[in-house]
Amino acid sequence: METKVILDSLWVVLAAMLVFFMNLGFALVESGFNRAKNCVNILSKNFIVFAISSLGFLALGWGFMFGDGNPFVGLQGLFFLNGADNSPATGDAYTGVYSAISWTGVPLLAKFFFQLVFCGTAATIVSGAVAERIKYKSFIIFSFVMAILIYPVVGHWIWGGGWLGQLGMFDFAGSTVVHSVGGWAALAGIIVLGPRFGKYTRDGKINPIPGHNLSIATIGVFVLWLGWFGFNPGSTMAADPGAIAHVLMTTNTAAIAAILSATAISWIILGKPDLGMTLNGCLAGLVAITAPCAFVSVSSALIIGAIAGIIVVLSVIFFDRIKIDDPVGAVSVHLVCGVFGTLAVGLFAQDAITGVATGNGLFFGGGLKLFSAQLIGVLGAGAFVFVASLIVWTLIKAIMGIRVSLQEEIEGLDIGEHGNTAYPEFLTRKPGYTFLSNDAAVASASGKSLVQEGR
Amino acid sequence: METKVILDSLWVVLAAMLVFFMNLGFALVESGFNRAKNCVNILSKNFIVFAISSLGFLALGWGFMFGDGNPFVGLQGLFFLNGADNSPATGDAYTGVYSAISWTGVPLLAKFFFQLVFCGTAATIVSGAVAERIKYKSFIIFSFVMAILIYPVVGHWIWGGGWLGQLGMFDFAGSTVVHSVGGWAALAGIIVLGPRFGKYTRDGKINPIPGHNLSIATIGVFVLWLGWFGFNPGSTMAADPGAIAHVLMTTNTAAIAAILSATAISWIILGKPDLGMTLNGCLAGLVAITAPCAFVSVSSALIIGAIAGIIVVLSVIFFDRIKIDDPVGAVSVHLVCGVFGTLAVGLFAQDAITGVATGNGLFFGGGLKLFSAQLIGVLGAGAFVFVASLIVWTLIKAIMGIRVSLQEEIEGLDIGEHGNTAYPEFLTRKPGYTFLSNDAAVASASGKSLVQEGR
Amino acid sequence: METKVILDSLWVVLAAMLVFFMNLGFALVESGFNRAKNCVNILSKNFIVFAISSLGFLALGWGFMFGDGNPFVGLQGLFFLNGADNSPATGDAYTGVYSAISWTGVPLLAKFFFQLVFCGTAATIVSGAVAERIKYKSFIIFSFVMAILIYPVVGHWIWGGGWLGQLGMFDFAGSTVVHSVGGWAALAGIIVLGPRFGKYTRDGKINPIPGHNLSIATIGVFVLWLGWFGFNPGSTMAADPGAIAHVLMTTNTAAIAAILSATAISWIILGKPDLGMTLNGCLAGLVAITAPCAFVSVSSALIIGAIAGIIVVLSVIFFDRIKIDDPVGAVSVHLVCGVFGTLAVGLFAQDAITGVATGNGLFFGGGLKLFSAQLIGVLGAGAFVFVASLIVWTLIKAIMGIRVSLQEEIEGLDIGEHGNTAYPEFLTRKPGYTFLSNDAAVASASGKSLVQEGR
Repeated sequence: METKVILDSLWVVLAAMLVFFMNLGFALVESGFNRAKNCVNILSKNFIVFAISSLGFLALGWGFMFGDGNPFVGLQGLFFLNGADNSPATGDAYTGVYSAISWTGVPLLAKFFFQLVFCGTAATIVSGAVAERIKYKSFIIFSFVMAILIYPVVGHWIWGGGWLGQLGMFDFAGSTVVHSVGGWAALAGIIVLGPRFGKYTRDGKINPIPGHNLSIATIGVFVLWLGWFGFNPGSTMAADPGAIAHVLMTTNTAAIAAILSATAISWIILGKPDLGMTLNGCLAGLVAITAPCAFVSVSSALIIGAIAGIIVVLSVIFFDRIKIDDPVGAVSVHLVCGVFGTLAVGLFAQDAITGVATGNGLFFGGGLKLFSAQLIGVLGAGAFVFVASLIVWTLIKAIMGIRVSLQEEIEGLDIGEHGNTAYPEFLTRKPGYTFLSNDAAVASASGKSLVQEGR
Repeated sequence: METKVILDSLWVVLAAMLVFFMNLGFALVESGFNRAKNCVNILSKNFIVFAISSLGFLALGWGFMFGDGNPFVGLQGLFFLNGADNSPATGDAYTGVYSAISWTGVPLLAKFFFQLVFCGTAATIVSGAVAERIKYKSFIIFSFVMAILIYPVVGHWIWGGGWLGQLGMFDFAGSTVVHSVGGWAALAGIIVLGPRFGKYTRDGKINPIPGHNLSIATIGVFVLWLGWFGFNPGSTMAADPGAIAHVLMTTNTAAIAAILSATAISWIILGKPDLGMTLNGCLAGLVAITAPCAFVSVSSALIIGAIAGIIVVLSVIFFDRIKIDDPVGAVSVHLVCGVFGTLAVGLFAQDAITGVATGNGLFFGGGLKLFSAQLIGVLGAGAFVFVASLIVWTLIKAIMGIRVSLQEEIEGLDIGEHGNTAYPEFLTRKPGYTFLSNDAAVASASGKSLVQEGR
Repeated sequence: METKVILDSLWVVLAAMLVFFMNLGFALVESGFNRAKNCVNILSKNFIVFAISSLGFLALGWGFMFGDGNPFVGLQGLFFLNGADNSPATGDAYTGVYSAISWTGVPLLAKFFFQLVFCGTAATIVSGAVAERIKYKSFIIFSFVMAILIYPVVGHWIWGGGWLGQLGMFDFAGSTVVHSVGGWAALAGIIVLGPRFGKYTRDGKINPIPGHNLSIATIGVFVLWLGWFGFNPGSTMAADPGAIAHVLMTTNTAAIAAILSATAISWIILGKPDLGMTLNGCLAGLVAITAPCAFVSVSSALIIGAIAGIIVVLSVIFFDRIKIDDPVGAVSVHLVCGVFGTLAVGLFAQDAITGVATGNGLFFGGGLKLFSAQLIGVLGAGAFVFVASLIVWTLIKAIMGIRVSLQEEIEGLDIGEHGNTAYPEFLTRKPGYTFLSNDAAVASASGKSLVQEGR
């Protein structure tokens, strides 16, 4: 077999494994940033969402995304990879129905697995936003729809030969395809679900609900950061040393710039360097650089990351103020910074910096051409995903219900949904405890001790 | 140097690193599924078992497994890799005493390290089953015997040119060689050790003993899943893109099918989707696909995984009923599903699906030929490992004792064996607490508070 | 592009990712070995230190280390990789200002990222030693100086074409360049900072301060061990199968030997096999083999590791006795074993064992030539780093203060520095609690309960 195919394949499968590992990262960020009483539910959701996504993307999603079809959806080889395909042949030598992804010379199953882990990422982003109140069953159903339909359709538009790609929109590794798609679906879910009990009180107060385990959350962010080195550099889908090294560096540089700027801005605004903001800053930088990583210089990556780190802090504060209750900041990280990153291509791109002819962005003399395409992409993807998700969430709500009972929410979803607790031996505050401003008063008013065994 | 050697070597060492990382996964699954009072002991066991295995496999195990010899054991180049070997030469160009593994063209030390991490896996499987009551010293001794003798002998039979391989038994990545070998040794250990105090009461009641930290256990399963992408695809021991992509997909597909089926069946049987069953379901699917991953289609993998997910739930319930006290379900996961996976080759194999001439399995028109060989392999390996392990465990029990004192077991092995606790600052329930049906009654009967500082 | 460049580049970027992941390992070892009340601070430090190092090494550090210059420091292409460089060209084909690292044929950004993660490691070593009492701001400043100046200067001496390299000193992957440099800076920091409150009492008593979470610490060590497979084998910076397999094996063998010897010696000295010693033993073996991994045999690695495991236990006890308060044992692990490993090259080296012409060490007939060069390297690097660090720490202390207030130290840095706690729902002992010999007496003397909510 040709050496290039072997090299490309090794790179693609190893990168895919790193992206797969992001499932652990998401699970830990979500569980760490939420309360102990919902930990089993959160871990379960994050575990099953990849299983459901894998099944859905295999059964139908891949076909909708990469099957030959019209500019809006794939129509050939829809079910279980059943279309013709002579991969790893590429270019003119390729014959098959998945031509949009025939540019990478790896076996079909390697392509599939790499794309699958991206689909799984989009689905898992939703999980954090709807945490601590959604029914397990309802979440599973939504994830399945996400994997077979919502994600693949937008994916087709941008990466599958559809209208946005044809328009000249560029999204190297998925600031829009993966992150803002996940973010829009999350936002719709939050709106249909409503905020958690105790988060916003009648007198207009906003109660912070701290995460139960910042060690776990920090592990999660480090694992995600590592995973992103598969996500972005892996999106070359070819063992191209120059492009890989470049993307690796833009990715890391944006992350560290965002860590520093998010830490600084939270220090200024909140008075202290908040670890949660530092962590979300890192993710914000990574999300923002995901679209432009192969199209911008390392210096531009530094700027893009620094801006993303500031945006995410302001966004988290903003959404809290307008009572969009997003327990982990998923909308701020993935939607807001995903949009910003996609637009950043239109601002910072330098033509062919790693070989792709994007044209220059606004700041490099390219005018508004590229920026306009990026903006249309943002709006088009956003409109579709937000509306489609709203419909799906609303249907789920109407048919099977979407939210656990208030009683169950207060006691924790772990007992109600799973009959289990994550830390049965450790003594914790009472599950109903919501960290209101005056702990003692609340506890005394409820006539109960704050101490609770093992939940 | 020849490019193929470089490619194969990179793949093998990277895959080996992933498999090495499974040590972390096993450590976390075992500690998470057990009680806080034994956590230090469990972490210690999981740490030292790889050290002991490494030493034993280097000193003697490798030679018994891959040294040229008779159909039952290797006899040449036994000690510290001291045999002649001109790796990475392969085929006719190979000269040396480790000819059974001369088919892979990588340096000897790369072969060794890849095989070492497999040996370590087999040894570590035992750890979970004997947790919360075994003496540290006794476990170390058994692990050493496992690594120098028990594992290598069966390995020789199947992968080292021995009688089972000659018979036409196929075990691509070790459902039998690694998993059921570990499982049989574990079962023997459980029998010699007996159940944990408080697990089964005189009136025939079975007390669930929940794990102390499901976050940790979940991290463990994700890490194991990632590690399996080295375990199975890496067992190509060559950078063969088609085979790697195929094995990667069968592996992942079996895992997700098992997650879904185990979750569903536990939902039906237990009334709620139990996270422990979801996690063990994942591992069950992975164990089951380990033998057939390179010999069956992706669709067959879906079926094999789904069956494994159901088997493991039923098996866990079954072993609990017959009072085989296996704290983490190691026997159900590794032995039962290892046996199932090995037999599944005889059912689902399709000849040369990734190049290996296995012949077809029963469901693909191959009759019972392959299935019979697989069955003989299962029985042969099982008989040897179970009997040998029983003897070794019994000798250990007779010579140095195998079980900590009842007092120590109740207080926790951390204090008794290591003089340490894993979470000294957190307040937990009392160590002696065994989650009997009526907490308050038990606590009050013992005249003590349930609250305990820092253990 | 030439196949060799692709192969080398894939190897280097993948190895760099593994080394990057060590940041997680360090974060967890440090947080696990310290108290819950400082956990947020520790996680924050470990997160930001890589960001700060990345910025500093990009801005200036790389230039000082690898820029062409004099034997003491690089002087060309200092800022933001702005020097000429035609990588991946090597040897005579290379033209540019980073000639000291032109031997590896990978793109400039791949070289940079690989070296960056090493710089980050050196900086992060300091973190553990100064934990639980240093001001966040002061630590950030020191890390920045470390990354732009202290680390790069020594790096230049040994790896950047400077005087120690010219002298014939060998440090394959950085026992000195990374580990002892980090260790000397840490020792200086400890001296300037002083011990933690409550660690040493007026009557000469030494109070053990156990870590709050050994599960987390164990995860950390496994992650570091995995990362070391990038650190050492990756330092080939070329896809050379023989060298990679050899270094992988010496690395693993030293680690397991050290685990066994540290466990055994702590069992003998302390009466029980202490998990903390087992974990630090592993790290000690890895640090010690880092310099010699490519220059010694696997058998020598076994001896080097075994010695390191003993040294680290004795060293931890020694530093505790002389009241150098190092919460995680960073000085014992990284400085002492880094020195030992560097000297071990002079003892155990076998000429050209993986191709590098080191000459033989003392035990293999090479006399004292190599050992002398190694010793000069140890002394030269030590003198510079220790003095420079002392000056920087002292300046920081004078200008902005280095230590949090006693009140803040007792209450925990999490509240004081970050306004946050890592485990707000779990009930823990009081933050001021320092595990003095008589818990009850202390608690009663302070007139407070030992139980504390959520800190």
